[in-house]
Amino acid sequence: MESAIPTHLRTARTKDARTPKNYQPPYPSFVARHAPGVKRVVMAYFGIQYRDAPTQASRGALDWLASRFAGSNGPTHWDRAQYVDKARFTNVVSVAYWDDPKLFDAWFEAAREGWTGDVRTKDNAGFFIEVLRPAVESYETLFSSLGRPEGIAVLADDMSGEVQEHAYWGGMRDRIPLSQSDDLAPRDNPRIVRQGSRLQVVPQDNICMIRSGQDWTDTDDAERRMYLNDVEPVLRAGMDFLRDEGPAIGCFTNRYMRVLDAHGNATEKSYGQSWWHSLEALERWAESHPTHVRIFGAAMKYLSTLGPAAKLRLYHEVSVASAEEQFFEYLNCHEQTGLLNAVELVA
Amino acid sequence: MESAIPTHLRTARTKDARTPKNYQPPYPSFVARHAPGVKRVVMAYFGIQYRDAPTQASRGALDWLASRFAGSNGPTHWDRAQYVDKARFTNVVSVAYWDDPKLFDAWFEAAREGWTGDVRTKDNAGFFIEVLRPAVESYETLFSSLGRPEGIAVLADDMSGEVQEHAYWGGMRDRIPLSQSDDLAPRDNPRIVRQGSRLQVVPQDNICMIRSGQDWTDTDDAERRMYLNDVEPVLRAGMDFLRDEGPAIGCFTNRYMRVLDAHGNATEKSYGQSWWHSLEALERWAESHPTHVRIFGAAMKYLSTLGPAAKLRLYHEVSVASAEEQFFEYLNCHEQTGLLNAVELVA
Repeated sequence: MESAIPTHLRTARTKDARTPKNYQPPYPSFVARHAPGVKRVVMAYFGIQYRDAPTQASRGALDWLASRFAGSNGPTHWDRAQYVDKARFTNVVSVAYWDDPKLFDAWFEAAREGWTGDVRTKDNAGFFIEVLRPAVESYETLFSSLGRPEGIAVLADDMSGEVQEHAYWGGMRDRIPLSQSDDLAPRDNPRIVRQGSRLQVVPQDNICMIRSGQDWTDTDDAERRMYLNDVEPVLRAGMDFLRDEGPAIGCFTNRYMRVLDAHGNATEKSYGQSWWHSLEALERWAESHPTHVRIFGAAMKYLSTLGPAAKLRLYHEVSVASAEEQFFEYLNCHEQTGLLNAVELVA
Repeated sequence: MESAIPTHLRTARTKDARTPKNYQPPYPSFVARHAPGVKRVVMAYFGIQYRDAPTQASRGALDWLASRFAGSNGPTHWDRAQYVDKARFTNVVSVAYWDDPKLFDAWFEAAREGWTGDVRTKDNAGFFIEVLRPAVESYETLFSSLGRPEGIAVLADDMSGEVQEHAYWGGMRDRIPLSQSDDLAPRDNPRIVRQGSRLQVVPQDNICMIRSGQDWTDTDDAERRMYLNDVEPVLRAGMDFLRDEGPAIGCFTNRYMRVLDAHGNATEKSYGQSWWHSLEALERWAESHPTHVRIFGAAMKYLSTLGPAAKLRLYHEVSVASAEEQFFEYLNCHEQTGLLNAVELVA
């Protein structure tokens, strides 16, 4: 058993961890380990939003983005997912990952112009960019099994052995290295700024973002039924709650998406991605709200029951970022899109 | 000026028409004219329903259906459209038209087995079939311009000259030949019957169906802006009302869809398709409900203002059908799908 916080990021603790005394987790979990030379990563979400059906322009924009990803200074890893939002628009979200912000900066300006710039105003679709570039002290990952990293963990050097800080309330915060000495509290509220046709959201300090994924590719028939019939509906109810009622509890927006393959078809993977006013708001929902308590309970029961036989893969990554580590921009999106929803909330 | 009812379908009138005395319509409209040998047509809607994103199976099913359409005894004309429904499922609806029911009957059984049969139960999608086979006395069409027929009118021999019965309340009923001697009143309510995995809705007499389309392909920039900014939002608000609040006023279900091209991309055509408890319920909404009065007013203003210069094309077809002329079947669809919504309504 090892700590989720790697040796080189351990600091003098001024904030208590919530790990129970003599704690033995009920099932194994693992975290991503970056090479010590990695100081900061970039997670960049590129969304396109349209009503009812894709257009030639929207497909062209997605192909264009894929070609930019494949180009010089492009991301080490990216994936694409799709969902229908609260306003019934279809959104296709491509997320790309770098572990060297200099490469991202060299890549980003042209990509930004091509995605939310004037060239897109005639496409009859909404476009958005949401970027976090957290220091490695400011985020954590968690995986229920080894062998298929997702998200930022694809860029990691390796995975840990079994870690201690999971499967109890508070584990998420305890896995973030900065929590050893910082309360990660939010400061200020986001504001909106118009820049030509674009709307930029000027962020607050310590916004929190979670990507939480599910992968039932490897399940056999019996386990697939257990997941799809018993667990997924509970998860979806929680995701729907955050989508519809999130703002009242500090969740600016929630996207529960199906991951797509290279042909745009649904795979047997999904993930929820949500933006929160604070890590604390996410914790409060997770620990006390019936919709998440049921999700947590279902996952605990599932993983404890099946043990190492479980073929379902669960993972997440949670980041807290300062205002300087954020970028949000929207073109022709409806007003409930992403952080625009946050601005309405605080206005 | 001619009557919308062709000579060979004129009968002794026992029900009064509502055409105003000495009526001159404010703008021209036209109706489809079938060859006199055509006695009955078939309108067959094939829907597939999935969450969030298409799958390889859903694309395969659509390709399979297209190949059936192209096969022996297939339809003379078909098109495909897509929308997101009230429950946020994406639906792709292919509608096919025959003007000889014998050809349809020879074609249908294998198509039905392939679309709602056991072969589809593993596709993780919903499938439905909704068929009307009205006699030519039981439906009407209306077009704002000549030269590009849509729907059942593609099968017509010709289009009429300018007809008199339009642009006043009651014109729709007055164009249906059977209305000369029949009140087209509903009888009975639909019931539901389980047949293996399929749910069949056993229909009522004189259900009413409308397909009402818009085509802005030919508009120049100024007219396109006028349509998309001034008219389309009014139309969408009315369509959303029917989708969300329709059952209370006798509209079982409403689909406001974008027509797709052969690659599955949105075209500059849309149509609303809705199922009603009765022609009278559709009339009552059209004449008195603010959402349709605004649509009607916007279309009247638009067509009267632009006159023959208008490049926007509007059309509809409205059918009333006896119980024997209907067929409704659903496999793995959510309970607010199509006529399933009607059954919930009357249960």
